[in-house]
Parts: sequence; structure tokens; C-alpha cells
Amino acid sequence: MRLSRYFLPVLKEDPKEAQIVSHRLMLRAGMIKQQTAGIYSWLPLGFKVLRRIEQIVHEEQARAGHIPMLMPTLQPADLWRESGRYDDYGEEMLRVKDRHKRDLLYGPTNEEMITDIFRSHVNSYKDLPLTLYHIQWKFRDEIRPRFGVMRGREFLMKDGYNFDLTKEAALHAYNRHLVSYLRSYERMGLQAIPMRADGGPIGGDYTHEFLVLAETGESEVFYDSQITDLTFGDRAIDYDNVDECQAVLEEFTSRYARTDETHDEAIYAQVPEERRRSARGIEVGQIFYFGTKYSEPMGATVVGPDGQRVPVHMGSHGIGVSRLLGAIIEANHDERGIIWPEGVTPFHVGIVNLKQGDNSTDAACEAIYAELQAQGLDPLYDDRDERAGAKFAGMDLIGLPWRITVGPRGLASNKIELTNRRSGQSEEMSPKDAIARLAEIYRPILQA
Amino acid sequence: MRLSRYFLPVLKEDPKEAQIVSHRLMLRAGMIKQQTAGIYSWLPLGFKVLRRIEQIVHEEQARAGHIPMLMPTLQPADLWRESGRYDDYGEEMLRVKDRHKRDLLYGPTNEEMITDIFRSHVNSYKDLPLTLYHIQWKFRDEIRPRFGVMRGREFLMKDGYNFDLTKEAALHAYNRHLVSYLRSYERMGLQAIPMRADGGPIGGDYTHEFLVLAETGESEVFYDSQITDLTFGDRAIDYDNVDECQAVLEEFTSRYARTDETHDEAIYAQVPEERRRSARGIEVGQIFYFGTKYSEPMGATVVGPDGQRVPVHMGSHGIGVSRLLGAIIEANHDERGIIWPEGVTPFHVGIVNLKQGDNSTDAACEAIYAELQAQGLDPLYDDRDERAGAKFAGMDLIGLPWRITVGPRGLASNKIELTNRRSGQSEEMSPKDAIARLAEIYRPILQA
Repeated sequence: MRLSRYFLPVLKEDPKEAQIVSHRLMLRAGMIKQQTAGIYSWLPLGFKVLRRIEQIVHEEQARAGHIPMLMPTLQPADLWRESGRYDDYGEEMLRVKDRHKRDLLYGPTNEEMITDIFRSHVNSYKDLPLTLYHIQWKFRDEIRPRFGVMRGREFLMKDGYNFDLTKEAALHAYNRHLVSYLRSYERMGLQAIPMRADGGPIGGDYTHEFLVLAETGESEVFYDSQITDLTFGDRAIDYDNVDECQAVLEEFTSRYARTDETHDEAIYAQVPEERRRSARGIEVGQIFYFGTKYSEPMGATVVGPDGQRVPVHMGSHGIGVSRLLGAIIEANHDERGIIWPEGVTPFHVGIVNLKQGDNSTDAACEAIYAELQAQGLDPLYDDRDERAGAKFAGMDLIGLPWRITVGPRGLASNKIELTNRRSGQSEEMSPKDAIARLAEIYRPILQA
Repeated sequence: MRLSRYFLPVLKEDPKEAQIVSHRLMLRAGMIKQQTAGIYSWLPLGFKVLRRIEQIVHEEQARAGHIPMLMPTLQPADLWRESGRYDDYGEEMLRVKDRHKRDLLYGPTNEEMITDIFRSHVNSYKDLPLTLYHIQWKFRDEIRPRFGVMRGREFLMKDGYNFDLTKEAALHAYNRHLVSYLRSYERMGLQAIPMRADGGPIGGDYTHEFLVLAETGESEVFYDSQITDLTFGDRAIDYDNVDECQAVLEEFTSRYARTDETHDEAIYAQVPEERRRSARGIEVGQIFYFGTKYSEPMGATVVGPDGQRVPVHMGSHGIGVSRLLGAIIEANHDERGIIWPEGVTPFHVGIVNLKQGDNSTDAACEAIYAELQAQGLDPLYDDRDERAGAKFAGMDLIGLPWRITVGPRGLASNKIELTNRRSGQSEEMSPKDAIARLAEIYRPILQA
């Protein structure tokens, strides 16, 4: 993309309404615009990151064998009356009446609807196991929306639902989700720690939240410091293998890690004192096993191998897609702006032309721009007639991981500068070498 | 995908509620499920086609230089009070009150919101031309929703908005949209004819609707038969070239083609009698130029080259993404089921194993399945233990354009059968030749 043709309305001033750094930087970098309390437009740069995150989630769900679909944003109230949650949910549920005075609601989650789909179409245990998921906009009418997309009212979430014949099979689905979530977050450049949590309005007492440590987190968390040494990495895993998935669960959840909701001082005291940590965390996902909580009242049963109808065992599994942008920025920024992890960056590299209008500098930039695209990379070329300082500040603010700086002085000896956003370090090299280096850096990401 | 692990709940009986063939086939093929009047879940097969259509739209919008973003589904009522449409829109607008009694609405379209974004961020003519678009769920509270996704209440639409300094520049944006829409529909296997139409609640008298001819269309249309001979094909076009785009507009709109709203018997009478046609059409898109209708009341102005503030010239341009599934099926089916055009088919090819459980047949199917995937194709392998007749009927119903049939008799001489869904014709060949043939057929689609 050429910046002269893009829509990237960066702000020079810090917006007053933003209390936390991710909200401030998303507004300043022209990623979002608030339309009313807790409801945002995603401007082009923000939308690009949102799509990258969605794409990672889709890819990792496919790898785990989970099947994508899409449920609508509006739901009939009757489904929620069946489960008993219509009255329970309280004021966070946005209730709507249509022109015929029928009760609808803007879905805050989808246990009822997916259970309805299941009971309409599945009859036999032979069609199990089954895990369906979607990525869809949801609404929770927070009394005090704040922190930008971190606690918005209209938000994008991936939610998946497993249907299994037995508790054991459902717990394997739980483990599959844990593994796929670990992989997903790592691809986004995040360490998200699974912690024992509380079931809340979804239900069930078998649940883990995934938390990213950050000073601005809304939850207080307590953990054994050994847990932050764990990484999933690029290990191969067979998602059908019960033992392999169980081993990952044990590896990542056997050390103490709990949110304040489930924190237990007595157990925590058994962690060696030098490894006890308390910190703040941002919740970016949660997995649940809740057995037959919905299948029983809603009649989601299958005929088992013995010919008897039994309610299916279910769980639900969510990733906060739109809130992840905030969490990633909270964990990746400095005083100059955002520092995107390479897995989610909106553009792979920025090109800064130091002398726009100079024929040979322009030509060099164009050649680099074209060759990066030919390599499958997505560059942002700052082709505006602006001072170098303004171009650098803009690139630092929007946080692309790499920058190529092209000026007439360097070009005289066939050199450009390749700069890493995080370290700030620059290296002179030929355009060809810089392109090869970037292709190499992004190869695992493009092939993932 | 292996069918044994997919969720494809096909129906044996014709659903009673479906009045038109696309609705009936989408229900029978397990593509959608109605959740309440005019609100549907997209089951996995339906969701896949929806994504293919979205992808084509995104690719063609990018080619035209239009910039993707995303506006929320819910909008504050105040924006619509500014334009005067809040009261005008009537009962089709779904109005919502949040917990603080603030008025929201579920957006039926986005002229107001995009104008608000523009006026907040753009100040100078130097930032023009600009075209922003999104693909987002919208809601129109139809009094009598019917025909499945063809006239649903919650529907997915691509809507784009151009901002230009002058009427001439805005008309070039109009032409760019016309060209990109012609390309988009052709990639979906559709002939969509631009016809002079009426501005309706969007406004403006410079507007064309794109119509797909089909017996079940809701509009009566009148046209010169020469128009159905036109195809855009794979001609290269420079979207920045005003003359090139204008020439396409003239080529595709100079012959008589109007909906009943703008039909003029006197002009129609000038078409040679043997070329006059009247038929029914399904509207799958519409483009508008409406000048300063929104920019003036909402204060979306820029400083022009002469230092004076002027309201920008705008247009809006929509493609009915979810309704396109219905339109494509209306135009592509037979008595046995759907016949997907190759550009949008959910899976590229089906594999039918005639003797599931037979070691060598299973192995041959697995090898073909793996090799098709290695070629970048997306096959659906019917690996269920079912009769051949049931497998064939299922494949015909869901409408994949190609089928590979694998049985022990053919394999004895290294032969499988490759069958074209549309023609019904089969050819015996080696698995290797069949894979090469399919890779060749889909190459232009995968590279688009």
C-alpha cells in the first residue's frame, strides 16, 4: 500500500478520553474511532490487524479439526427462555423488540443457539465428536464501557462449542482447545497463561482463563514464576491423540496460576516463596466444560451405542478477538508507539523515502516496494512529500516491526537502512539483501 | 475435508416453508438454518460459500484501489437525526434502546456513519480521492421476510463510499465501481446486468442496479437482448484511467436495460422489436452517485485548491453478499440440486469412495485426497460407509462442480471416473490425470 492512497488518520495529540496506553495508541495510530460509548469503527489499519488475528484463529481451529460456521448477531429470546438465562442475564443483555413486537436480543454468547442447531440436526452418537465455532460480533451492554476495545460493548469474539458422548471425550475437546489456544496466542506474539478461573454466567467448574500479564489488566493473578518459562513453540501435535493433548494440559496447568476469583492462599503458600508472583492480567480467552447444563434443559440428546437417548456433554471456548488488539498493544509498545509482533502486524515493513520527488530515490523505492510484494510481503510505502522526521515518527507510532529507509546518500553506494522497531537498531545493506532478509524473517509466518 | 468429520446435515424431504428453489436447496443441502423469521445461521457449507464470495469482493475492491475497514452493526441514532433519515426510514429500521435509554439502531446502511468518519479526519482536497468500504451485517426489519437469504432481515452486505472533490471525480469513482462489480459477478459465475434504477431511500438519480435474470426475481426488467452478449472477461483495466472506465460504463449501459421503476415505453419502443425482452431479475447490487446529499447537512467538507471549504461529492455502492448465494443458486441448479460455479464452490471437488473399508480403495482415495490438497485444492472426501447411490445423490445435491469416483473395479486398471456436475458427463482416467486436469481447471481461480 502507498501511504498517499491509504486512509491512516494519525493524531498528533493524545486523546483525552483514553485512560490506558492501548486505547491511546489505537486512537493516535488511526486504528479505531469511537461512534458512541463502547462502539467503535475499525479504521483501515485497525481492521487489518483484526483480520490477521481472525486468520490465525481460523487456521489454528482448522488444525484442531474444529468446523467454522456463522450464527447471526440477533437471537430469538425464546431460546434463552428455554435455558433459563433470559431473565438471569440482567442488564448486560441488549434486548430488542422488532416491528411485530417479538423479543430478540443481541447475542452476548451462543450456547443456546448452537444447542438448538445441534438438537435439530444430530441424532446419533456416530456423528460425534463435533466441534463447531464461529467468529462473530457480540454485544454486552456494559454499564461503564472503557479502555477502548478492551471493554467495548460491541466486540468480536471467537466462540466454539464441543458436543461429545461422554465426559471423557468432552475433556479431550477441552484439552484440544487449550492446545490450539496456546498455539494461537504464541503466533500473535503473546504469552497467555492458562489460569484456573470461575465459570460465571456460562457455568461449569472446569474452566481456565488465558491471561496476558500487563500492568493495566483488570484481574489480579497469582502464579508460580516457573509458568512464564513455558512455551509451546513449534512442536507437532496430533489433536486426535488423547494422551498428547492431556500432557500439554498437565504441563501448562500443573503449576499454581489462578485469578483472584479462585485464588487459594493455602495452596499458594506451598509454592516456594521465591517463585510466588502476583501481578495483573488481561483475559484474552476462556475454555469451559459444563457437561449437560444446556443439553439437558434444551433436549440436545443423541442415541448412544446401547440405543438409549442421552444428553450430550458440552463445553464452550472463547477468544476475545477484538480485545486482543488492545492486549497485544499493552504488552508491546514503548514511548514512541506500538511495536507489532510479526505475526499480526498490519504491514510487514514500512518503506521511508527520504527524498520524495527525486527520480532515482523514487525509482529505488518503487523497485523495493514491487519486489517485496513479489515475495508475498505486504509493505507500506510512505511516498508522501513530508520531512524525514515526520515519516519516522509516523512509522514508529503505527509500529511496523521493520523499516527500510531509502535516501540518495545511501543509494550512491547501493545501500539502504534496515531498522528493527523493537531494538531500534539499524543496519546498512543493499536493497537486495534487505528484501532477502525480510523474506527469511517472514517465511514461517507466511507459511503457517 | 472428510465428510465423516464434517457437519453437513442434508435433509431428505423438501422443507415446507421454502417457496423458491434456492431457499429449498440451501435448507436441503444443510447450508442454513432459520433461527427466527428472516434470521439465519450459516451452517458450515453455507458459511464456506459466503467466505468465497466475500473473498472475491475483497480482492476486486483491492484491485480498484478501494480501502477495507469495518463499521459496527449498531449506530447511534443522533447521526441519523443529522441527515434527517432517522424519522424518514420507517419501520424497516430496527431501533434499540440501551440500558441508559440511549437510542441506537441496527444499521441498514452506512452513509451517515462513514460521512461522520470522513468529517472527523479529512480536511484537505489533497487527501482525495478516497473510497472506503466494509462488509458487515445489516438489518432491515422487513414486514414479511421470505425466500430465505434472498429477503432476510439480518443480511451481509458490502457497502463502499467514495469521497471526491468534484462531480467529475465522483463519476469516475462510480465507473470504477461499475467495472469492479462486473468483474466480481463474473468471477462468481454470474451475469449481472447493470440497469437504470431508482435512488430510493439512499437518494440520487444517477444509479444502476445489477440484476441477475431469473424466473423468481422480484423485479420486472426490460432490456435489449444485445446486452446479454456482453462479457467483461479477463481484460486488463487501469482503474485510474478515466477514459478506460468510462468506456466500460458506456459499453455496458448504452443499450436499453431498466427495471420497472424507471421503465419508459417510449424509449423501449426504439429498440428493434426482435431484440426487446422482458423478464424477471434478482437485484444483487446497486451503485449511486448522490453528490452532496449527506456531506452538506453533515458538514463533510474539505479545503479546496483555492482555500475555500466545499462539501465533498459522494456515492455509495453495495453488493448483497448473503443474498448472492440465493441468486447464484437460482441461476445454477437442476432437479438434482445445486450446481456451483467453480469460482464460489464450497469444495473444489468431491471424492466418492465406492467401497469404504476396502483397503486398496481407501488407500487410493487417501492418496487422491492428499495430492489434491498438495495442489492447493480443497476436496470433500465422502468417506462414510454408505451406499454409492446415497453418496452420488448427496454430491449432486450440494453441487460440487466435479466428482471423482473411486472403486475397486476401475482401480484394477488404474482408472477413476471424473464427472462434471453440470453436464453429467463422466470420463475414465488415471488418478494422476484427473488431479492434473482439476489443477488446470482451477488454476485461474486459485491465482485470481
